[in-house]
Amino acid sequence: MKYSIGVDIGGTTIKFGLFNIDGQLMNKAVIPTVVEKGASGILDDIADQVLTIMRDMHVDRSELLGVGVGVPGPVIDESFVSTVVNLDWDNVDCGKGLSDRLGMPVKVANDANAAALGEVWQGAGHKYRKLVLITLGTGIGGGIINDGVIISGSNGAGGEIGHMSILDDPAERCCGCGKHDCFELVASATGIVDQARKLLVESDEPSTLRHYNGAYDARAIFMAAANHDALSQRVVDNTAKYIGRAYAMIGCVVDPDVFVIGGGVSNAGEQLLSGVREHYRRYAFEACRETPIIRAMLGNDAGIFGAAKLML
Amino acid sequence: MKYSIGVDIGGTTIKFGLFNIDGQLMNKAVIPTVVEKGASGILDDIADQVLTIMRDMHVDRSELLGVGVGVPGPVIDESFVSTVVNLDWDNVDCGKGLSDRLGMPVKVANDANAAALGEVWQGAGHKYRKLVLITLGTGIGGGIINDGVIISGSNGAGGEIGHMSILDDPAERCCGCGKHDCFELVASATGIVDQARKLLVESDEPSTLRHYNGAYDARAIFMAAANHDALSQRVVDNTAKYIGRAYAMIGCVVDPDVFVIGGGVSNAGEQLLSGVREHYRRYAFEACRETPIIRAMLGNDAGIFGAAKLML
Repeated sequence: MKYSIGVDIGGTTIKFGLFNIDGQLMNKAVIPTVVEKGASGILDDIADQVLTIMRDMHVDRSELLGVGVGVPGPVIDESFVSTVVNLDWDNVDCGKGLSDRLGMPVKVANDANAAALGEVWQGAGHKYRKLVLITLGTGIGGGIINDGVIISGSNGAGGEIGHMSILDDPAERCCGCGKHDCFELVASATGIVDQARKLLVESDEPSTLRHYNGAYDARAIFMAAANHDALSQRVVDNTAKYIGRAYAMIGCVVDPDVFVIGGGVSNAGEQLLSGVREHYRRYAFEACRETPIIRAMLGNDAGIFGAAKLML
Repeated sequence: MKYSIGVDIGGTTIKFGLFNIDGQLMNKAVIPTVVEKGASGILDDIADQVLTIMRDMHVDRSELLGVGVGVPGPVIDESFVSTVVNLDWDNVDCGKGLSDRLGMPVKVANDANAAALGEVWQGAGHKYRKLVLITLGTGIGGGIINDGVIISGSNGAGGEIGHMSILDDPAERCCGCGKHDCFELVASATGIVDQARKLLVESDEPSTLRHYNGAYDARAIFMAAANHDALSQRVVDNTAKYIGRAYAMIGCVVDPDVFVIGGGVSNAGEQLLSGVREHYRRYAFEACRETPIIRAMLGNDAGIFGAAKLML
């Protein structure tokens, strides 16, 4: 049997998964990300952990096809990472660095792109070949898969859907990227809270959110909406509208088989998705109006699945 | 030497080009599109003309790699055309139909997608592998090339950029697709005229366009703008803004090496492109802010170039 190891580098932990070529997850491990060690120290830690997994799971070098890595930043040529804000990395040749340490093939992808590849391999998109994933968390990540392959882009910015300039009225808050009209500013968990805050300030319309003294999160807004709080319902509908419109625009570019929604906000499930589908249909080009919109399946493991798939 | 024939089916004419594998155009021909003959009759005409070219140019069957075809509608699986409004086609298996007639391999693509492939092969994009083309004519067509391959999409709607819902305020005019917020409604030649008409009606601001008694076209608007007509300058700037914003959004999806502008409106040259670049930079995600925006090179021949390339 042949194997592949997927690695997902995050700001606080690094996740590892050993997979066989059939896509079965044989072993999982997590180590802390020690940012202070710098890129070189982190690559040392990853190499050590890969060797540990191989030893513990009795996987021989000849059986391991290689190591795939997801990193939270733009990746060029499946290896080079120009900058990762979370990790304080600058111009790190992550693929070569790890390949030199391990003496085996290594491929690197952006973590959201890897998650999209994971979903198309063993998750929500396993019946499809062309998939668009958006992950709604603190920010918005995204990944585009065309015929089973990541569209990573010329500058590693393929699938950076969160930074589409979708807002007509610039937001007060500045996006991490420096713009004021990013999709992420309204439809991420943070953006959803911002939407509610703005509505609460603009009028004195009653809302159960006012009882929180400002300490509500996106989940509280979805709960309030489910309990018929009109202001919260408008926020949920508006969020669905932004997502549906973004999907419709992306449909005119790459026309995928399926749209997938992941990340913490997607836990709202049908409460969000039914609205997204409705708005999508209104904005979509007729030929792709029936494209399904579904929830991601692999949760936080999507990254290690997709990273492992890079080598298969 | 090996050859390929590219065919570009339009509403009034069908263009043919014989190419060698180095991309040299050896022979061109044009026949009328006799819409009344229906799909079957048109495919007969195309097959006849292909055989004529082979005979006239002394190209043997063994030397011809096949025939590539561009059609003005969505294409699935490089063969099947569900609908072409211009030609009154419904569910035509264009690839199989022509391949059966000729006894040789045939591949079919949407005409705008073929044009994009032509530009990346022998035109403005020949130095690149990932290209986004928009053609600004009566409508807006588009094509996305990733690593030398057309992204045609699940429903043949890949690159249907003209139908991105980019308008915040719905237009009065309805797009051919049934929506009121399409990019095409403002940035096509027709859309540019609509923008001017709206401004002329909304106020009695003086403008040289008023001398035309309504009979101005996009070219007249660009000329008036070049001659310091303030209203026309606003139309040109607004058009550049829409195009720049659309490119910036597309950049977040597929992040190409280069953006290319073709079609009649692109004859405005730097008068339009300098504004597009300026607005693009404002809306673009930082990683792709420096992506070049250039004019298409192949003009009306882009389609036969790209169609021929399908077979190479």
